[in-house]
Amino acid sequence: MDKPYVIGIDVGGTNTVVGIVDKRGQILKSGSIKTSKHANIEDYMDELAALINTLQEETDTKGQIKGIGAGVPNGNYFTGCIESAANLRWKGEIPFAKLLEDRAGIPVTITNDANAAAIGEMTYGAARGMKDFIVITLGTGVGSGIVANGQLIYGHDGFAGELGHVTMRRHNGRKCGCGKEGCLETYTSATGVARTAQEYLEMKTDETQLRDVPIEELTSKDVFDAAMAGDKVAREIFEFTGEMLGEAFADFVAFSSPEAIILFGGLSKAGDLIMKPIRESMEKNMVSIYRGKVKLMFSELKESDAAVLGASALGWETK
Amino acid sequence: MDKPYVIGIDVGGTNTVVGIVDKRGQILKSGSIKTSKHANIEDYMDELAALINTLQEETDTKGQIKGIGAGVPNGNYFTGCIESAANLRWKGEIPFAKLLEDRAGIPVTITNDANAAAIGEMTYGAARGMKDFIVITLGTGVGSGIVANGQLIYGHDGFAGELGHVTMRRHNGRKCGCGKEGCLETYTSATGVARTAQEYLEMKTDETQLRDVPIEELTSKDVFDAAMAGDKVAREIFEFTGEMLGEAFADFVAFSSPEAIILFGGLSKAGDLIMKPIRESMEKNMVSIYRGKVKLMFSELKESDAAVLGASALGWETK
Repeated sequence: MDKPYVIGIDVGGTNTVVGIVDKRGQILKSGSIKTSKHANIEDYMDELAALINTLQEETDTKGQIKGIGAGVPNGNYFTGCIESAANLRWKGEIPFAKLLEDRAGIPVTITNDANAAAIGEMTYGAARGMKDFIVITLGTGVGSGIVANGQLIYGHDGFAGELGHVTMRRHNGRKCGCGKEGCLETYTSATGVARTAQEYLEMKTDETQLRDVPIEELTSKDVFDAAMAGDKVAREIFEFTGEMLGEAFADFVAFSSPEAIILFGGLSKAGDLIMKPIRESMEKNMVSIYRGKVKLMFSELKESDAAVLGASALGWETK
Repeated sequence: MDKPYVIGIDVGGTNTVVGIVDKRGQILKSGSIKTSKHANIEDYMDELAALINTLQEETDTKGQIKGIGAGVPNGNYFTGCIESAANLRWKGEIPFAKLLEDRAGIPVTITNDANAAAIGEMTYGAARGMKDFIVITLGTGVGSGIVANGQLIYGHDGFAGELGHVTMRRHNGRKCGCGKEGCLETYTSATGVARTAQEYLEMKTDETQLRDVPIEELTSKDVFDAAMAGDKVAREIFEFTGEMLGEAFADFVAFSSPEAIILFGGLSKAGDLIMKPIRESMEKNMVSIYRGKVKLMFSELKESDAAVLGASALGWETK
């Protein structure tokens, strides 16, 4: 008989969340450990395997897990390795899938976190029934998971979908953590929004509640709070950010002509404040054959659930 | 028994080429008619169907054709219609597949010309055995056919892959025929290269054989000839063009991480003059995880054959 459960793991820079999931996408039980606690990958793996063991015992699912799926920064679907992830402490190439498989005795498949989110949306979220869509994750960085013909696009090497690093400004672009300049991520990630706020405050003399925070401590949360309270400068910052996303989305549409682009992560909480400028800018920058056709949506899944559920869906694929 | 032949049709703005193709990709016989001769689509279809009939008689393949595949500007794989193709005389939505099917009595599948070229490369050309690649057609316009996971990406509406219309210059960009500004096509199509030449000659005082041609009559062929003869300004024009293509390719790689990008069409005849700046610029503008991994290639198929062969491969798909 087919084993009726899978395990989903969401590895973030700070926390790692593990959930046991049934065939209907219900999370039976979940738990977490600190990703950043362990400088040594072996120690981390030992703690992760112990948590998996405990969760299985608590749910009485031992021997009934079909597979483990994990969403990991820079996780490579084809090799099972993490390759130089900027937000993790372990450097170089880490054979994540193998290390966990050896400990847990269950087959492990990994992909990156944005791809896991896309699988989550397709299986349980806003993209149910869609065959062509793009998930854009707006968080500390900007990531993406692209689905075409009902399949996730991994590319020949497993690294497709780094849409946070398309170049939006070819001259005087902001320096990106990836080494390039002008990447989408430098403007539209949470950090990017904070950078925009700092630039605006230095450039402008307008009154704004953003000046109540020391400029070097400004976060995207401050901008969000101020915008929700009606602050004019904060709203301009969201307009700038949305316009940039819309320009980028117009190019993405020319690539895969998706039915929808789904926003996922912190920034998407800003609702129409971000969606309206995105929509206007996207429509303006698209070739006419695409106009009015592409849905812009927010993720329907709770952020934490989506990552674990998306990753867990990979568990069903394991042999 | 399965019918052993298919028919491939390449519909260009000027000519329409038809070939009868066997299972090994050999063109048994081909012929052509003038696309631009007929203002009325019905008249065109009558002449096309007559040519198809003649070719079948001459090759003794009547009743043995499995299907017809056609590569048509703005041809929609899902609907079988041409939708507002700028380079054709028939305006609005033309039910190309149905009109031909009614006359020829053989099932017809269509797609756009760049997608047909991509299928041709995958089946008979440089992309044999590849599952992830992009074909960029450099001609009067710039088109693209994208293959991921071994499948052509059509998008939800059949219009994926309009990479000639990603925005390369967001300020003071060249006006594009599509209504937008700064599209890749306005710089790197044959027409785009001629525009660059005109700009260079107006801007610069350098000596160059390009001045032998009246400026408004300059073509990409003149630039090509001059560059091959060692003309410095003409070579700079190719460098500018290649740099722009490389910038665009770097973003395409971030999308689908292809094993190869294959150049197809007139401009690709320039060899290293265009390939060297493309490669340098692409590598410079890519995120490091992609560097040194993406092959840049020229099409291995004769231009005319590729279009007909690619289109014909669609004939095998018909039911």
